[in-house]
Amino acid sequence: MGRGLADDVPLLTWLHDRIWPYESNMTEEDSYVSTLLCGIEQIRSGVTAFAEPGGQHVNGMGRAVRELGLRGILARSTMDCGEGLPPQMVEATDEALSIQEDDLRRWHGQAEGRIRVWFGLRTIFNNSDELITRTKTLADRYGVGIHMHVAEVKEEVEFARETRGHTTVEHLEHLGVLDKNLLAVHTVWLTDHEIELFARREVKVSHNPASAMRVLGFARVPEMIVAGISVSIGTDGAPSNNRMSLVDEMWLTSLIHKGRTLDPTVMPAQTVLEMATVNGARCLLWEDEIGSLEPGKKADLVIINPRTANMLPLHDPIANMVSAMKTENIESVMVDGRWLMQDGAILTVNEEEIYHEAEARAAGIRERAGITLPLRFRTLRGS
Amino acid sequence: MGRGLADDVPLLTWLHDRIWPYESNMTEEDSYVSTLLCGIEQIRSGVTAFAEPGGQHVNGMGRAVRELGLRGILARSTMDCGEGLPPQMVEATDEALSIQEDDLRRWHGQAEGRIRVWFGLRTIFNNSDELITRTKTLADRYGVGIHMHVAEVKEEVEFARETRGHTTVEHLEHLGVLDKNLLAVHTVWLTDHEIELFARREVKVSHNPASAMRVLGFARVPEMIVAGISVSIGTDGAPSNNRMSLVDEMWLTSLIHKGRTLDPTVMPAQTVLEMATVNGARCLLWEDEIGSLEPGKKADLVIINPRTANMLPLHDPIANMVSAMKTENIESVMVDGRWLMQDGAILTVNEEEIYHEAEARAAGIRERAGITLPLRFRTLRGS
Repeated sequence: MGRGLADDVPLLTWLHDRIWPYESNMTEEDSYVSTLLCGIEQIRSGVTAFAEPGGQHVNGMGRAVRELGLRGILARSTMDCGEGLPPQMVEATDEALSIQEDDLRRWHGQAEGRIRVWFGLRTIFNNSDELITRTKTLADRYGVGIHMHVAEVKEEVEFARETRGHTTVEHLEHLGVLDKNLLAVHTVWLTDHEIELFARREVKVSHNPASAMRVLGFARVPEMIVAGISVSIGTDGAPSNNRMSLVDEMWLTSLIHKGRTLDPTVMPAQTVLEMATVNGARCLLWEDEIGSLEPGKKADLVIINPRTANMLPLHDPIANMVSAMKTENIESVMVDGRWLMQDGAILTVNEEEIYHEAEARAAGIRERAGITLPLRFRTLRGS
Repeated sequence: MGRGLADDVPLLTWLHDRIWPYESNMTEEDSYVSTLLCGIEQIRSGVTAFAEPGGQHVNGMGRAVRELGLRGILARSTMDCGEGLPPQMVEATDEALSIQEDDLRRWHGQAEGRIRVWFGLRTIFNNSDELITRTKTLADRYGVGIHMHVAEVKEEVEFARETRGHTTVEHLEHLGVLDKNLLAVHTVWLTDHEIELFARREVKVSHNPASAMRVLGFARVPEMIVAGISVSIGTDGAPSNNRMSLVDEMWLTSLIHKGRTLDPTVMPAQTVLEMATVNGARCLLWEDEIGSLEPGKKADLVIINPRTANMLPLHDPIANMVSAMKTENIESVMVDGRWLMQDGAILTVNEEEIYHEAEARAAGIRERAGITLPLRFRTLRGS
């Protein structure tokens, strides 16, 4: 429900004046409705499983995911320090961890095993070393993953150097956090040495091309894949992208690395398709059950209808699936043997009711948060 | 019909082994069907008017545009020199110009004025100086525009320096071609001086972000707009992009310049919307009749339905229109007072028939051209 809330503004305006005020004014019920809205968009984009790190209310998200029928890893966006936080978001390390343990005990394995809960670390700007190391200990004890934004913006790496004496990645290595169960998101500013370190420690990477292009920079994904890192594709949250469409992110992934390196062979369509399927499952630590169609795996699948003007002819079906396919071509979606969408109709929730509810709640949150957006055309008012 | 024909291959493979063999084997009837297929995709993307520079058969394109009901500027992709051309494509300067004059006399002003014909210059690699200067003379005499790929790849600028002693843009200036009626496409490699020159000569620019990102590099669009150049948005041809969707190109335009400059304020949504509407009309030299909703202008319009999971809520309708909107949100399209699509149904041509015909013809052209695409997954065969 935060889509279009913070377009075309500098990062600090984005965070301090728009996103933090908005999310800190969201109730559990708002989070429930927002997740329903987002879930419909995900299903329509052919998403069967996702990892969500940005929520404040795992209870709200969990209820929505149960109803939607999706498979998802939920995490609470966790911060125990940092400047500019709204008072409602400030919490102590102990509290931050115990809330997450409560979420985990309540939701991990729920919805016939479709919901899992991980620990969340927002960024090194807002996470103390104590929080980071205790998170790692708890994640290992519960046998779950950790979701963290890593080397997202240049300023973050500089901040880490100033406050910790090392880059974010080097510091996480010293804290013993670089490991198989870390899903590092964005990772735009990795050095060669850090890519090699990620590969050695089997750290997972989530590549979010639209969001990265918008402000962060261009992640060195081809280099990471050559190094053997499991890189998957994500959309980031709606206010960082405005589209929650994996279909469009596949297209972007196929484009931007060619442009950055000026080498058209650097990111072939089959690699992008693997990033969106098998690598996705690996990044969710769930590849034993999902990510490919094989005997013994869960029945999560998508039916594509390519007979539209935007996808024909099919000279190269894989290329078309990655770069010509649109969400309109996603006809039916099944998760765990159950149809969530069939022939374009969402079967598990009531779309119209959710749209109505989401619009009303989005306006309410914005009012409570006191966010006013500037008009884009002067002539819209008073002319 | 060339979509997906040349993905993930180096530029020379793209051109010599895929695109030239394919296009040189297209008949007028193939071009007609290909334009019908493309036109449906354009209408579904909310396009009402376009400029097409890449065709071989203006007759085929013209027939299709008349039936589709679109507004379009047609041009023949013209070459009179260069290496690696298939024999069918080699023609003398005189012939290249007289065919275009024939096309112009036959099609300019047809379909109740919805069709116009311009002169085409493919690139400086394949155009002699004589062709370029005589094209300019003829375009001025007929009062029409010229469509040319300019400073598209780095190698082009180097080629111009070696063969003409100047960059492409400097050379066009010496030839007297930089003028109001030149639509320069891509213009990725412009210097500051060349941007200033474009502004002074009122040259028009077509920015094709997906295609550029794929191999060419990142055009300096914010700088061009600041300089006062009319920059519009294009999709390039299907084999350079795989999507003919202006809706998605708006999103890309809003993203890539922020990423390149690391400045999120550099390409606000309202600027992108202007590029896709008013600036589009200016680049077509048609702003007296189209590009905005005003008394006295033609009734070209698009109806958008934002009540879908991917577009709600509407905190910032302009931002959502530019970056969240998808082709699914384009509900109805009118050109010159006539509905081409209403409530998602194409009214002017028969979609199913065209899909069937396009698939058969695309396979036929590929066979005649002897193009075999490598398999992307080995396991698809013989396993």
